[in-house]
Amino acid sequence: MPIRVTVWNEFLHEQNDEKVRAVYPLGIHQAIAEFLGRDAELAVRTATLGQPDNGLPQAVLDQTDVLLWWGHMGHQLVDDMVVERVYQAVLDGMGLIVLHSGHASKIFEKICGMPSHLLSWQERGEGERVFVINPAHPIAAGLPQYFEIPKTEVYSEYFSIPAPDSLIFLSWYPSGEVFRSGFTYERGRGKIFYFSPGHETYPIYKQPEVQTVLRNAVRWTARTPNAPRIVYRANTPVLRPHADMGENR
Amino acid sequence: MPIRVTVWNEFLHEQNDEKVRAVYPLGIHQAIAEFLGRDAELAVRTATLGQPDNGLPQAVLDQTDVLLWWGHMGHQLVDDMVVERVYQAVLDGMGLIVLHSGHASKIFEKICGMPSHLLSWQERGEGERVFVINPAHPIAAGLPQYFEIPKTEVYSEYFSIPAPDSLIFLSWYPSGEVFRSGFTYERGRGKIFYFSPGHETYPIYKQPEVQTVLRNAVRWTARTPNAPRIVYRANTPVLRPHADMGENR
Amino acid sequence: MPIRVTVWNEFLHEQNDEKVRAVYPLGIHQAIAEFLGRDAELAVRTATLGQPDNGLPQAVLDQTDVLLWWGHMGHQLVDDMVVERVYQAVLDGMGLIVLHSGHASKIFEKICGMPSHLLSWQERGEGERVFVINPAHPIAAGLPQYFEIPKTEVYSEYFSIPAPDSLIFLSWYPSGEVFRSGFTYERGRGKIFYFSPGHETYPIYKQPEVQTVLRNAVRWTARTPNAPRIVYRANTPVLRPHADMGENR
Amino acid sequence: MPIRVTVWNEFLHEQNDEKVRAVYPLGIHQAIAEFLGRDAELAVRTATLGQPDNGLPQAVLDQTDVLLWWGHMGHQLVDDMVVERVYQAVLDGMGLIVLHSGHASKIFEKICGMPSHLLSWQERGEGERVFVINPAHPIAAGLPQYFEIPKTEVYSEYFSIPAPDSLIFLSWYPSGEVFRSGFTYERGRGKIFYFSPGHETYPIYKQPEVQTVLRNAVRWTARTPNAPRIVYRANTPVLRPHADMGENR
Repeated sequence: MPIRVTVWNEFLHEQNDEKVRAVYPLGIHQAIAEFLGRDAELAVRTATLGQPDNGLPQAVLDQTDVLLWWGHMGHQLVDDMVVERVYQAVLDGMGLIVLHSGHASKIFEKICGMPSHLLSWQERGEGERVFVINPAHPIAAGLPQYFEIPKTEVYSEYFSIPAPDSLIFLSWYPSGEVFRSGFTYERGRGKIFYFSPGHETYPIYKQPEVQTVLRNAVRWTARTPNAPRIVYRANTPVLRPHADMGENR
Repeated sequence: MPIRVTVWNEFLHEQNDEKVRAVYPLGIHQAIAEFLGRDAELAVRTATLGQPDNGLPQAVLDQTDVLLWWGHMGHQLVDDMVVERVYQAVLDGMGLIVLHSGHASKIFEKICGMPSHLLSWQERGEGERVFVINPAHPIAAGLPQYFEIPKTEVYSEYFSIPAPDSLIFLSWYPSGEVFRSGFTYERGRGKIFYFSPGHETYPIYKQPEVQTVLRNAVRWTARTPNAPRIVYRANTPVLRPHADMGENR
Repeated sequence: MPIRVTVWNEFLHEQNDEKVRAVYPLGIHQAIAEFLGRDAELAVRTATLGQPDNGLPQAVLDQTDVLLWWGHMGHQLVDDMVVERVYQAVLDGMGLIVLHSGHASKIFEKICGMPSHLLSWQERGEGERVFVINPAHPIAAGLPQYFEIPKTEVYSEYFSIPAPDSLIFLSWYPSGEVFRSGFTYERGRGKIFYFSPGHETYPIYKQPEVQTVLRNAVRWTARTPNAPRIVYRANTPVLRPHADMGENR
Repeated sequence: MPIRVTVWNEFLHEQNDEKVRAVYPLGIHQAIAEFLGRDAELAVRTATLGQPDNGLPQAVLDQTDVLLWWGHMGHQLVDDMVVERVYQAVLDGMGLIVLHSGHASKIFEKICGMPSHLLSWQERGEGERVFVINPAHPIAAGLPQYFEIPKTEVYSEYFSIPAPDSLIFLSWYPSGEVFRSGFTYERGRGKIFYFSPGHETYPIYKQPEVQTVLRNAVRWTARTPNAPRIVYRANTPVLRPHADMGENR
């Protein structure tokens, strides 16, 4: 059974800015959906801010194993009820991959419990080197020990996030910055991956190494079938008496 | 210079429930303030929900190095603006110690980025064994490798929290439960400690081992003087050119 | 392509002790290999201490994606060169699953960098409850939120190990103990899982939940195809000059 | 009572190499001991490889709250019994600060359980930027959000270490590298800090920010008075019967 992937995009830049449209004429979501869709084990659909329910009604989330999130200028336009719905879906096992400027999205901030929009940034059009610092992690499979992105937006520490559960990538920029550029969290039954490389005018999602990362991340974050179901009990015998387990039974 | 401690209590049970008043006649906050206050290195005050600004105007937070938080039935009565103020204070370096049922407080949920109110619980009046699993941690100083609480409220896994940055205590209950009962997070410049032992009718805060934990925790979470100040830069040269650092200078 | 699994057993108890032979007549390794072997995606072989090279010549490790390790009374009989070979194989990507008393094996101690043989234990023949505390982890898939083992050997904290990279299971025992009973480490390109339930005379490896854990763990620890290859450089240009990456290229 | 600090140095370069002697005429250990010694709360002594017991007989370790370790060309000359003695002392609560090339020392490798000598390096004489990524950590107190070292030796990822318990510093180098340059581990009752800045011919230990880091690290790693004492029990009642804790007592 394929992994069901939904690529979400606010889809604003592409409609308003010719420079963005030149790189991603059908939208960033379509570009990502296109290369993920070539993977026979993935069933990919897209959703956008302008659709009813911001493209994410409960029925879509219920049929999504991994949600990729691209947002930038429209973070505040996402409905709080949609954010809450995505949050609950993640806690219940839906994977979440947060892309680039999505660090400032409502959903990522809520999950971080920190003001994750805070970092330093600059558009210099210079390059970035992405180092793998956890070569055991499946998200790094198929990569060299570091790879380069020719033109990127600089994101620099300090980045206001909780210490990752697993830190996989560190980025270097020629202008003097470092950044924790790829890392994971586990929250409830859900797995989250953040990846900073990506931009609306630099064609970073067309780069093979970046596509490898996202293909790996889809598999890693995908909803685990049969994850333990949690039942919380309020002032009722939490568990059956341990006497059942003793030597005398 | 002493560590400035503010003990916050919703202070509701003690006014409404004779059983609680019998144990903590002046309120849980006063009982905690009393034993902390005997420590010459601490300057202790209290604050309660019913005071203006829920007892926590900005001026109080500005002069607080560690805030202890007791809440139970009144979580929803805490003003959202006060929660936001405490949140910003923690990110800026104020320590936070969350006690027992405070796991379900607005402030702890916001910091966790998870529904930390979710756990199983039961009031059986049985005992609890608290094991130290990180004997290097200063919060465990002065304790034996485990200690016992004669009568407690059972809190049981699964507990809906992010994996702690440091897990210090695990609790065992005779009725068949385990719990991550003491752990830390670091968020921004702030340090947070959660400790589950404590209750409004069992006199747990009068137990020497529990007092030791809280005295240690006050020191560990206390605001670090001169913590690095973070300045975020938006599309301005993030750092001075690295050419300054090369061989030719 | 199937995951290539090698189940290693010192295979001493079964030859010397009738009580053990009664439970595992062909050896613990054969019992484990039997249920893993029913999984069509796994190709399972066994190896034992008494074979040449302790059953683990380089050629076997080179064709092993996951090694399961059972040892108890014969830890000191394992050749140091074999331990070194397994260690290098793990760092290079071979998965390692350490079972029960394997916490005191040379290989696990070397990986822990701590005296992981240190814990408290007791053979009481009572039960154990194993709680899932990270329901997002694939090793917990297919399990309830906790399960019970009818008769077990008690392992108790403090357990002298490094804080796990991911703590998945906590165990409770009626006689008053808790234990970190299942957790992972990532080391180099290798993934390690330790699981304490298991014993030579209690038929724990015949229990469905335990078999589920081990089947999941084999998949989770299995060698990642195409993990990044690391090349270390000594005083040669570590990377090509960053000038290649600047605005002028 | 002051923190008792022992600064250990192999003290070889300074005797054999004029360039090193020019920077540290009395040895690196004396330079470090000098600035630490100006701190009234520290009682500082030194020890070197050439002394009996490599300068570290049991009596010295017993009176040491923090050991700083500088080694480079003489790692293999350290007696294995001394390494074992230091290892046991760390597990028992003595702090350990491993400096620069000490990443390849026997003691650090043993604690890491990984081949921590593996990293890429280059002596280019260029600069280094050290970013604070955990501003809550006391070891970062008194620092700006990043600081610069004018001339340094490049250490580059991938660095073959276990994921730190707390990652505090990340370094950037103009030639295109990043490095986890400061981090902690907790092992048993002991606390360990590794810090890569430092070198035998660049006067890095004379730089105020580096001295601040080491002064902070001495306090953070220092032996905790009254850390829990662990007693391991073998097949004796691990704990007194839980019946003691039930409702009927």
